[in-house]
Amino acid sequence: MNETMVTLVGNAATAVEFRETATGGMARFRFAVTPRRRDRETQLWTDGPTSFYTVWAWRALAANLAGSVAIGEPLVVHGRLKVREEERDGGRRTFVDVEAVAVGHDLSRGTAAFRRVARVEPALTAPARGGPDEVSGGRPDRGSGRVPGGGADPGPGGRTDLSSAVREKAGVA
Amino acid sequence: MNETMVTLVGNAATAVEFRETATGGMARFRFAVTPRRRDRETQLWTDGPTSFYTVWAWRALAANLAGSVAIGEPLVVHGRLKVREEERDGGRRTFVDVEAVAVGHDLSRGTAAFRRVARVEPALTAPARGGPDEVSGGRPDRGSGRVPGGGADPGPGGRTDLSSAVREKAGVA
Amino acid sequence: MNETMVTLVGNAATAVEFRETATGGMARFRFAVTPRRRDRETQLWTDGPTSFYTVWAWRALAANLAGSVAIGEPLVVHGRLKVREEERDGGRRTFVDVEAVAVGHDLSRGTAAFRRVARVEPALTAPARGGPDEVSGGRPDRGSGRVPGGGADPGPGGRTDLSSAVREKAGVA
Amino acid sequence: MNETMVTLVGNAATAVEFRETATGGMARFRFAVTPRRRDRETQLWTDGPTSFYTVWAWRALAANLAGSVAIGEPLVVHGRLKVREEERDGGRRTFVDVEAVAVGHDLSRGTAAFRRVARVEPALTAPARGGPDEVSGGRPDRGSGRVPGGGADPGPGGRTDLSSAVREKAGVA
Repeated sequence: MNETMVTLVGNAATAVEFRETATGGMARFRFAVTPRRRDRETQLWTDGPTSFYTVWAWRALAANLAGSVAIGEPLVVHGRLKVREEERDGGRRTFVDVEAVAVGHDLSRGTAAFRRVARVEPALTAPARGGPDEVSGGRPDRGSGRVPGGGADPGPGGRTDLSSAVREKAGVA
Repeated sequence: MNETMVTLVGNAATAVEFRETATGGMARFRFAVTPRRRDRETQLWTDGPTSFYTVWAWRALAANLAGSVAIGEPLVVHGRLKVREEERDGGRRTFVDVEAVAVGHDLSRGTAAFRRVARVEPALTAPARGGPDEVSGGRPDRGSGRVPGGGADPGPGGRTDLSSAVREKAGVA
Repeated sequence: MNETMVTLVGNAATAVEFRETATGGMARFRFAVTPRRRDRETQLWTDGPTSFYTVWAWRALAANLAGSVAIGEPLVVHGRLKVREEERDGGRRTFVDVEAVAVGHDLSRGTAAFRRVARVEPALTAPARGGPDEVSGGRPDRGSGRVPGGGADPGPGGRTDLSSAVREKAGVA
Repeated sequence: MNETMVTLVGNAATAVEFRETATGGMARFRFAVTPRRRDRETQLWTDGPTSFYTVWAWRALAANLAGSVAIGEPLVVHGRLKVREEERDGGRRTFVDVEAVAVGHDLSRGTAAFRRVARVEPALTAPARGGPDEVSGGRPDRGSGRVPGGGADPGPGGRTDLSSAVREKAGVA
């Protein structure tokens, strides 16, 4: 409750660092957002100052970011914004973090071939909260977009597929 | 000014319809958002009711959506929310639209191979506002992630690449 | 998880309807958002089409809205966006709802005298989730801005006051 | 284009500083956001770490904030998020700013008496962009909620009142 959600549209300013931890994978990278404005008199677009954020991700999102995102690529990042201050080297430092909920390549800048990653049923593999997500390795060719192995319970980090009932209701207005 | 920005995390509920118009490509599709809640007593996750939106896109984003997104795929959609009412068949109908600014496959659900699309310098090709974006056809293999042909002025729909100065400033905190 | 948060800046299009229910107060009103755009050639501002929403609130927020907001007043509304479809009178009707989390008068349009409402300790009065909030009646004069009766547990709908530690840390940068 | 909009729900951590500048009033204050989480096992709510922001406002919003907001009061702040880094005292400092678009007292925490502020027709008073807004002084009693002097062109910072046509269309669904 009372969390600050934010959506950033910009570019990965560093490569994705990935690390395995006791509770699963963790990834982070720096992210640059540069607003563009149209000058009222010249009608030209110019860049405003760039804002930098540190994006953090866990579990399946962390693994998929590490396997999918290269430095400089344009992304949409949606997550929880946090500002923290720490004492370091005798001075107060400010860090601006986004805990990512969903991240995708910005399709206004290019195309993407997506491949869904299967999730193993958490109940069958581990009692841990969040559960380890099985991540297929490597850079995939474009697949069918379907979950191989079926719609296992997505766990706390997951969302369900569209049911056929939902598809029927969805007809374009 | 005073526009309502919204970020949707969900799934494409229909295929992307794409159409060429006098001012460039236009795409639309239905989008389904299903919130998940943890029951306080059972500690199980359950789906809430699904909300449906019609997502609209233009120019490069429209073409790239048509070339990248299949029905059922998980997406992050960021754009302007509009509710419009129209008289149809003797009754008032309500439509809920999102004019997309940036859209990407949700990497919490799978991996993606991104390929940047070159933009032709608008000044050299057309005086139109927004400018026609050259879109490479077909489903791309993963490329270098660099713009072939260089960083032409992105025009109103574009954002610049990271400059090397920006990259230097970006070191992970 | 996966809820759609939205912030609307606009005007109350109806008076606030308030009703007591078994689980506490409930309020709703219609809300109008009209974007403004600057014409690129004439440099004049013009109104775009108005979007309408139904805003819903519960408990203390519901009571305070009923006691504070008149039709036509400018507001900022922050909450969860939902689109639902129902069969009515033989046709499908679409409703666009915002479950309000926080609402305030837009101070870019006028001034406001705020008066904090005391909350009775839920544990002392009722076991219900959310708990009934004591709402002082009438339109208040400007008070001290302090909670009479102290910082009782705010319950699920509450947020704490600033601690003195927080105030010390907050010095303007 | 590509700006990062954010909505903060929290408390003013300092008083509002107000200053007249060549282009109109300017206000700023520090703002504290403290998320609350329910512990999954104890079912109790606890505070997470507080994030601090510097909120900036101009013109009418600046004047109205100065006249309406006291330290500690709960607010909803909607605006553009920016992170800037500056060299100071031999070290790099990070500042997290929100350029406010709309701000209001959070009515989930108390009641508010709102009074609309008249705006003088910009064309009659000043050629400056944005235009100086006439701000009535002092802490107002609750007024009629109507603009004394009529619906002058709101200028770049304004939004129009509800027309009677809009009111007719707005009936609660």
